[in-house]
Amino acid sequence: MHASIVRAAAFVASIFALYIAAAMLVPAAVDLYYGHRDWQVFAICAFTTAAVALTVAAATRDHAPIRSTRLAFFIVMVLWLTVGLIGAFPLYTASLKLDFASAVFESVSAVTTTGSTVISGLDGLPPGILLWRSLLQWIGGLGVIALGLFFLPLLNVGGFSYFRIESSDIEDRPFERLSSFLQALVGIYVVLTALCAISYAAVGMTTFDAVNHAMTTLATGGFSTHDASFGYFESTAVLWVSTVFMILGALPFSILILLVVRGRLDALRDPQIRLFLAYVVSIVLALAIHRRIVSDTTFGEALTSSTFNLVSIITTTGYASEDYSLWSPFAVTVFFFATFLGGCSGSTSGGVKSYRFLILARMLQNGLRTLVYGRSVQPLRYGNRTVDEEMQRSITLFVVGFIVVWVSGTLALSAGNVDLVTSMTATLTAVTNVGPGLGPIVGPAGNFASLSDYAKWILAATMLLGRLEILAVLVILTPTFWRA
Amino acid sequence: MHASIVRAAAFVASIFALYIAAAMLVPAAVDLYYGHRDWQVFAICAFTTAAVALTVAAATRDHAPIRSTRLAFFIVMVLWLTVGLIGAFPLYTASLKLDFASAVFESVSAVTTTGSTVISGLDGLPPGILLWRSLLQWIGGLGVIALGLFFLPLLNVGGFSYFRIESSDIEDRPFERLSSFLQALVGIYVVLTALCAISYAAVGMTTFDAVNHAMTTLATGGFSTHDASFGYFESTAVLWVSTVFMILGALPFSILILLVVRGRLDALRDPQIRLFLAYVVSIVLALAIHRRIVSDTTFGEALTSSTFNLVSIITTTGYASEDYSLWSPFAVTVFFFATFLGGCSGSTSGGVKSYRFLILARMLQNGLRTLVYGRSVQPLRYGNRTVDEEMQRSITLFVVGFIVVWVSGTLALSAGNVDLVTSMTATLTAVTNVGPGLGPIVGPAGNFASLSDYAKWILAATMLLGRLEILAVLVILTPTFWRA
Repeated sequence: MHASIVRAAAFVASIFALYIAAAMLVPAAVDLYYGHRDWQVFAICAFTTAAVALTVAAATRDHAPIRSTRLAFFIVMVLWLTVGLIGAFPLYTASLKLDFASAVFESVSAVTTTGSTVISGLDGLPPGILLWRSLLQWIGGLGVIALGLFFLPLLNVGGFSYFRIESSDIEDRPFERLSSFLQALVGIYVVLTALCAISYAAVGMTTFDAVNHAMTTLATGGFSTHDASFGYFESTAVLWVSTVFMILGALPFSILILLVVRGRLDALRDPQIRLFLAYVVSIVLALAIHRRIVSDTTFGEALTSSTFNLVSIITTTGYASEDYSLWSPFAVTVFFFATFLGGCSGSTSGGVKSYRFLILARMLQNGLRTLVYGRSVQPLRYGNRTVDEEMQRSITLFVVGFIVVWVSGTLALSAGNVDLVTSMTATLTAVTNVGPGLGPIVGPAGNFASLSDYAKWILAATMLLGRLEILAVLVILTPTFWRA
Repeated sequence: MHASIVRAAAFVASIFALYIAAAMLVPAAVDLYYGHRDWQVFAICAFTTAAVALTVAAATRDHAPIRSTRLAFFIVMVLWLTVGLIGAFPLYTASLKLDFASAVFESVSAVTTTGSTVISGLDGLPPGILLWRSLLQWIGGLGVIALGLFFLPLLNVGGFSYFRIESSDIEDRPFERLSSFLQALVGIYVVLTALCAISYAAVGMTTFDAVNHAMTTLATGGFSTHDASFGYFESTAVLWVSTVFMILGALPFSILILLVVRGRLDALRDPQIRLFLAYVVSIVLALAIHRRIVSDTTFGEALTSSTFNLVSIITTTGYASEDYSLWSPFAVTVFFFATFLGGCSGSTSGGVKSYRFLILARMLQNGLRTLVYGRSVQPLRYGNRTVDEEMQRSITLFVVGFIVVWVSGTLALSAGNVDLVTSMTATLTAVTNVGPGLGPIVGPAGNFASLSDYAKWILAATMLLGRLEILAVLVILTPTFWRA
């Protein structure tokens, strides 16, 4: 039984590996065009990966049919691991000369769209490596949307079933077949990325920068081609363009598709979108007003920098235009808590996500009412639907799992002699797939390179846990999973 | 309706105020004996309090009968506020000359058995003030046990109903009447305090120190008569005596009563006791071994200091024998997370408490199993009983409420320009009623005095919220409470 699970997972993973091998030809072509010898590295990696993938696929072709829920959990994890490892392959072998732990960290940070980096001197790197990092994030972003829209609902993890396209506010079913929906998804993701790249170029980025940043913006990933991240561009227009597309990346793609394909403006009245936009606007305004009061920035400057940097954190992108941790103690606390939030389900963003906050708030409200009136519990509403007990339980589980992972990661890092703020915020930013933490090492002006290999492995594992909504991984670690 | 609620609450509060007025005669007598003129302050405070209390009691004697749950919530909060304010009265008027915010902070910190202090130079204070602080904590401790055993179960808050004496593992009902149980409770609290004082004196404390520390040990309060807290005594024996009685203070008093009055050793097999002792022992050992490895302390020294300081934090007492925040980054993280834990329900300790962790762990376990097997949910066990949905929901509510209070308090403090670690740990140590936080200001070697009045008011409110298990206060702040 266990052997057959592994066999089926290996087959699916090898098919995916072929796509990743094909993707390696893009940086190979770019490096060849720019005349950098790393093109050979990418070509060799692509060839090797394809060869191994084909061998594995051939050897496991006769796997048992994929039917059980357990197998689905296992495959999802194996897929992400596989892409993370294959993505590290060129990073490890290229002229960059990253050590193994760093290469895996960087690659996992990419495919989970986290955006924490161990590489400094980005501005001087060959274009192939830079493009590969961006491409991995872009592919990871698409993977996350697909995971949230098609896969996690089937697994009943984290209450995503609520946001399946069939059960949403929309009465008709616009996409009867999965493949047409998948086409629409890829289409809109590509179009939005292209629009973002064109907008970036229009406000002054080079084509190369525009394409790279467009990919990592839509993926809410956060990798940049410059050490100074968006501080490099010194342009307000660039920050606002980025803000718009980061927010788009954090919206539910099922809704975006309805909006674009069907022109259904009413689709935007999703409660999770309203809450997400509400907390973005209120936190940004609070911080901008606070900064206007305590410093001598103009309100306009404070608004632009607060908006860009906070939207970057809340959407779990992770760009920075300056070191906001120097603004004030209040700003530090706001950024710390903003790291938890996240965008909407079915988007590329990570974190706790707005629908969970919405339902948790309703649970608290309902519970307090029950304390006053006794046992009579009102049904819990999400939009015009009722949130059942099972959904509530799955959200509680997520919160408990999140806390367990956060506490364990923080303890593990600090056992490796990392201070409390760094341990705590590095683990947090990993599990929410944001990117930067706080403090000199992992903060917006820092770099994860100086952490030990031990810390890098722990953080890479934490990113994967966060990306797979925690429970989908924890379940594999239970004895029950392997017993039945 | 609202007027009648306030009227009934005022009556109950005024009766309690009479007891507190009587208690003021104790420090009055002590200061008179030691020849310090503060005895007049205590006498005048006692007289004034009694006069006001009698007037209020007479004016509200004809209040409506206390029947509704809502009234019970309101009365509990009013009682704690009243005792907090009256307790501040002598602190504000005595020769100490605390400002109003500091006096209220110190008094609330006492009656909630938190133990954070704004007073430095404790060693030189008149005995009356020192005794008053200890006495307030001791009374607060008794109040907390009564709250947990008799009151919160009636209100269905935080799942305490599980630990009511009638529904526990004990098949017979040893205490048919409330009054005999109350007598046993007060009796055992007094006897344990006396035993603790005698033990402290036996290992070298002066009588005055022994009595004061015995009161704040059993109350898991943490106020000391010395700025250096237990560092003053420089005695391993004192630390171990203290450890034993702090742990006793964190055990459920219903169980202690069964143990003492009935000699029922099997009463100790309560799952929450086992988990509490398990996490105390494992965390202490982990830290002691870590310190043995990373520093050149002997294992014996590391064990003693780790045990004393960690037990002090986990039981939410808050003594310190040295500045453990200098030990290592790992130690800091361990103490940070230890601040959340707490002891058992029906004890004097605060925090999340072991039974909640136990049930949360079971919920996670059960939920993961459900993910594998589909919808079939096994009943959730606590010892040999089943934990129903309502109980699970109340624990989730507590966790959500706890996080809401912690985040709000941290944001509020940092808005007053307090750094992240101080804001976060000061709010945490307040809501869990522990005492010290981390960092130079609120850490084990620090003092809350330098915080602004604004911060002191927020922290005092947070201590009260924590002491009343959060939900019992939040419910009063909902519009529903006042509408119906």
